[in-house]
Amino acid sequence: MPPDRMPPLSLPLIDAARAFLAGRVRRTPLEESPALSKALGVPARLKRESLQVTGSFKIRGAFFRLSLLSAEEKRAGIATCSAGNHGKAVAYAARAFGLVPTIFVPASVDESKYRAMVSLGAEVVRSRFPGYDETEEWALSEAKRAGRVWVSAFDDPAIMAGNGGTLALEILEEFPEARAFVLPVGGGGLAAGLSYAVSERAPGATIVGCNHERSPALALSLERGEAVTRLPAADTAAGGIEGGIGAKPFEVLRSRIARVALVSEEEIFEGVRWMLAEHRYLIEPSAAAAVAACLTGKVGRVDGPAVVVITGRNVSLETLRRVLA
Amino acid sequence: MPPDRMPPLSLPLIDAARAFLAGRVRRTPLEESPALSKALGVPARLKRESLQVTGSFKIRGAFFRLSLLSAEEKRAGIATCSAGNHGKAVAYAARAFGLVPTIFVPASVDESKYRAMVSLGAEVVRSRFPGYDETEEWALSEAKRAGRVWVSAFDDPAIMAGNGGTLALEILEEFPEARAFVLPVGGGGLAAGLSYAVSERAPGATIVGCNHERSPALALSLERGEAVTRLPAADTAAGGIEGGIGAKPFEVLRSRIARVALVSEEEIFEGVRWMLAEHRYLIEPSAAAAVAACLTGKVGRVDGPAVVVITGRNVSLETLRRVLA
Repeated sequence: MPPDRMPPLSLPLIDAARAFLAGRVRRTPLEESPALSKALGVPARLKRESLQVTGSFKIRGAFFRLSLLSAEEKRAGIATCSAGNHGKAVAYAARAFGLVPTIFVPASVDESKYRAMVSLGAEVVRSRFPGYDETEEWALSEAKRAGRVWVSAFDDPAIMAGNGGTLALEILEEFPEARAFVLPVGGGGLAAGLSYAVSERAPGATIVGCNHERSPALALSLERGEAVTRLPAADTAAGGIEGGIGAKPFEVLRSRIARVALVSEEEIFEGVRWMLAEHRYLIEPSAAAAVAACLTGKVGRVDGPAVVVITGRNVSLETLRRVLA
Repeated sequence: MPPDRMPPLSLPLIDAARAFLAGRVRRTPLEESPALSKALGVPARLKRESLQVTGSFKIRGAFFRLSLLSAEEKRAGIATCSAGNHGKAVAYAARAFGLVPTIFVPASVDESKYRAMVSLGAEVVRSRFPGYDETEEWALSEAKRAGRVWVSAFDDPAIMAGNGGTLALEILEEFPEARAFVLPVGGGGLAAGLSYAVSERAPGATIVGCNHERSPALALSLERGEAVTRLPAADTAAGGIEGGIGAKPFEVLRSRIARVALVSEEEIFEGVRWMLAEHRYLIEPSAAAAVAACLTGKVGRVDGPAVVVITGRNVSLETLRRVLA
């Protein structure tokens, strides 16, 4: 389906994503965390999307998005830009459809993610730019030149519905008491889909987005009243939350997000260490942003049962060594 | 039930363990490993018992064993000795029965396991001995002096049935084609229960036990034709496979184990790193012994679909730092 004919984000679109994904991706566990419950003062659960196929939630949106491609679009081929997880998800889903995607990645891409995309058979092109936004701008022009269909990592209703919408429905089915959601925010696809579904199905629940303090796209966008879609490259191991926010996700988020917690690189590293020490799960730095917000109290006051979305586990040994050093 | 009245290991005992454990512990995933399949030359799956409640398979046997305690035994109180995982499991199960167990641990106990037992409310007593065997000898006399009921970590049919028997039935239900099982062996409870159930339900399948080369109790026992129940303390991060083998498990294992793979500390560390890099799961050094046997080829020739049992994930950040250094 061409991007200009894509329907807007809606519950029916989320339901369609759910139906398509059933049996194709995992229903990930929602696990109690006594330690986070203590830290937050309310019953807290981890949505362990880090156990998802491809190691992150991104497969939900990517798989659903590719299922909407027309035969003509498939012939033209697809291209995308990713800090890693979306790219890995696109590579995985594309293989299921017999496609070889072109995936543009920042020069700073995590090595484990880079290798995973290559081994899934994708054509991976490393840009000369360290950050996401400049890489994407270049990738868009390259993809256009080659006549490829662009698959945005977040600025697309199907991606929002798949990534965040289906995740929210899963959580609410199992834990309808949830009154607060804490999650990392980068381009905003996950947060937009989740907050949309939550506002429809559990109105009044609080959604706290977590930004890296060096790349606070959501916080700045709320301040300015418009989407900050580009930011200078930030030096961080949390590539998934580096860069600007999508215009479409921000339109959904602006009225639905309660507040933004800004966390530092060191707090994120501490979140990775904490998860290893407390639960003995490996999570990636981007995912740890939400944990960090809870541990530092930056998440703010939480009034009811909370869900902390653990978005992924794709981290290289090199990065893990730095985190533990 | 007093140890001398415990029935021997049998399929009915394993079935009883399964029935008791249903809903009390997790049915853990059996996940394909393309990389291990390549290494072994046969389809290989990981039994991810590292995702089990308390972080290891030990909860299966401990929970079932404690369910057999008489009211009188409960009044007398229980004691056990553990390098960590069995102790953590006993602490967890004891809490469910309203008991406070005394758990004796070697001086070299992994800090994450020690803290976990304490936080589950157990009375944890650190011995002055670094190894398991000397600690257990001392613990047995202390427990006797205090009139406590002894809960062996492996030398007990209920423990064998729970730990290895129920695990084997789960695997065979999901993957009846399995023709080879690779697993770490310490005291032998897991291996005995698993090999007993496999020999009954999938006769002819190959079982490869993995010993630490510095503490090769199963290999030595097979060589000598009798259980080597005590070994000098070995310096290793894989505390779960350090020390002698139980006499009862060895009686089950002697005719059922195909061969023993001896792996080194460095090969075990490489197994932990490999699992992080390849699958991005945290596993503990003892669990990595089975992975190491596959990666080094020490597992020997495997003729059909294989299951590698990933026994636990309880490792401290301190140890993980050493592994990654």
